[in-house]
Amino acid sequence: MTATSPRTPAPVLVLVPGATGAPSDGGPGYRLADPTVPQLSVTDLVATRGDGVFETIGAFDGSPVNVGPHLARLARSAEMIDMPAPDQALLAEAVDAAIAAHESVAELSVRVMYTRGVEGTGTPTCWIHAKASDDWSPYRAGMKVAVLDRGLATTAAETSPWLLQGAKTLSYAVNMAAVREAKRRGAADVLFVSSDGYALEGPTSTLLVRRGDTFLTTPASAGVLAGTAVATLFAWLREQQGLATGEELMTIEDVKGSDGAWLLSSTRLAAPITHLDEHELPVDAELTARFERVLKGGI
Amino acid sequence: MTATSPRTPAPVLVLVPGATGAPSDGGPGYRLADPTVPQLSVTDLVATRGDGVFETIGAFDGSPVNVGPHLARLARSAEMIDMPAPDQALLAEAVDAAIAAHESVAELSVRVMYTRGVEGTGTPTCWIHAKASDDWSPYRAGMKVAVLDRGLATTAAETSPWLLQGAKTLSYAVNMAAVREAKRRGAADVLFVSSDGYALEGPTSTLLVRRGDTFLTTPASAGVLAGTAVATLFAWLREQQGLATGEELMTIEDVKGSDGAWLLSSTRLAAPITHLDEHELPVDAELTARFERVLKGGI
Repeated sequence: MTATSPRTPAPVLVLVPGATGAPSDGGPGYRLADPTVPQLSVTDLVATRGDGVFETIGAFDGSPVNVGPHLARLARSAEMIDMPAPDQALLAEAVDAAIAAHESVAELSVRVMYTRGVEGTGTPTCWIHAKASDDWSPYRAGMKVAVLDRGLATTAAETSPWLLQGAKTLSYAVNMAAVREAKRRGAADVLFVSSDGYALEGPTSTLLVRRGDTFLTTPASAGVLAGTAVATLFAWLREQQGLATGEELMTIEDVKGSDGAWLLSSTRLAAPITHLDEHELPVDAELTARFERVLKGGI
Repeated sequence: MTATSPRTPAPVLVLVPGATGAPSDGGPGYRLADPTVPQLSVTDLVATRGDGVFETIGAFDGSPVNVGPHLARLARSAEMIDMPAPDQALLAEAVDAAIAAHESVAELSVRVMYTRGVEGTGTPTCWIHAKASDDWSPYRAGMKVAVLDRGLATTAAETSPWLLQGAKTLSYAVNMAAVREAKRRGAADVLFVSSDGYALEGPTSTLLVRRGDTFLTTPASAGVLAGTAVATLFAWLREQQGLATGEELMTIEDVKGSDGAWLLSSTRLAAPITHLDEHELPVDAELTARFERVLKGGI
């Protein structure tokens, strides 16, 4: 366990030429590669159009969490942008290979990247990149969150599927710009609000809201990503704690009037919202710590 | 002149490590590189987030058009996403070098790519890729265009700058999805409409509308890219033809009731819209041919 060392362990790269089937050159479906040398073509459509999909999987003490749900969501995202279906079984093996090749650390962030590939080839490019997670403890202790308009109505996912709401694409420039705007406002992260006034999700996270003994999230039909972490917490809350969970469209005022809210992600885990813009929210440190253990796969 | 040859001339790649100033290793500001081998890191933020900006410049018989306006727009896009200012003079030299290194062709497409760079370095990645243009003659003869909702109001550019409307970013997955949807509908391209009902632009083009002797385009304040081609045509229409030009918010019905409409781009030039969804529009082949000559820099 070297996660507390100031030295950063070397990231691991696994290329997956067989992501959509056996590579035409008869080579292996996946192989370790050197992440310190260039591996991508300048004409890969991810480099010219941000055209591809991805997932980020957390691994804790060497054990990845929710690999199946993440790869299933990758496949759904790929389908939403008319890309070939990835071989989920092979990708799961490649994820394991990346984790096995990485020095043992407490928290590992494993990205699965799946692009439309080099222009004109019709063959997706796929790689897995594992690296020691950043130190997310400041977020897990609680963070200020800025409410920013996403400009789209909650109906857009259904009426205008080409807007790719609910697909985890590699076109994240707006998400990154929103986080920069939040930081300018003295906040650490963002809660997007729809043009019709509903709380949506963070740029890289899912909203969880507590109302008494009920835990709520945004319905995926509103154009948010179906969160893997919230699914894990909901199962635990229902099955282990006997509490109620549900999907509900909530206004920003609903969230402000709640008994607590978190932004959930597979690597940052449960980050409690201390302030939504200037409005202070109750923070339950003990419950947050339990969420963290559950999300690490510990329960 | 080999553009009519069935053989495709080899693309040219110029890497520009000095795009934001002299490279730290004392190397040249730009240099030719092999486009057939990988040149990009898997941790370049363009590959993980679609985080960067770009321009596509047309060069006709070896002469690039509107290099200055394109590079100025690249700088504006970079500023909108909080990237360092590119060295426009160096980039102009590098564009010339790319064109000079490419086999002589009638129409060359020169992409200038400027990404946020490898994670953690804070140094943008920049390259220029020149290749013989696709055959755009079917578009220039006239094309069906599907009207697709972009979901955002024309006020979003001003109220929500983090939505990056009007920045030419490398997060183009939605633009590409819209073109695929248009093709499913039997159309060749898209005219985006705002949620408040105004015609905007194409996914990679600018709208031009004729109303009698007046030529109109969408105001940039509505969240569209300020087109370089439309600026060229407007100058020619006013100064050489004595006609009126202007920016105006137009509804889709306004465009349908017009005396002709085009989608303009630096490489496809002027593509007349024959049908907007099912509605037929008048096409002036002679005027379109004159537009084409002007946009090639011939007048």
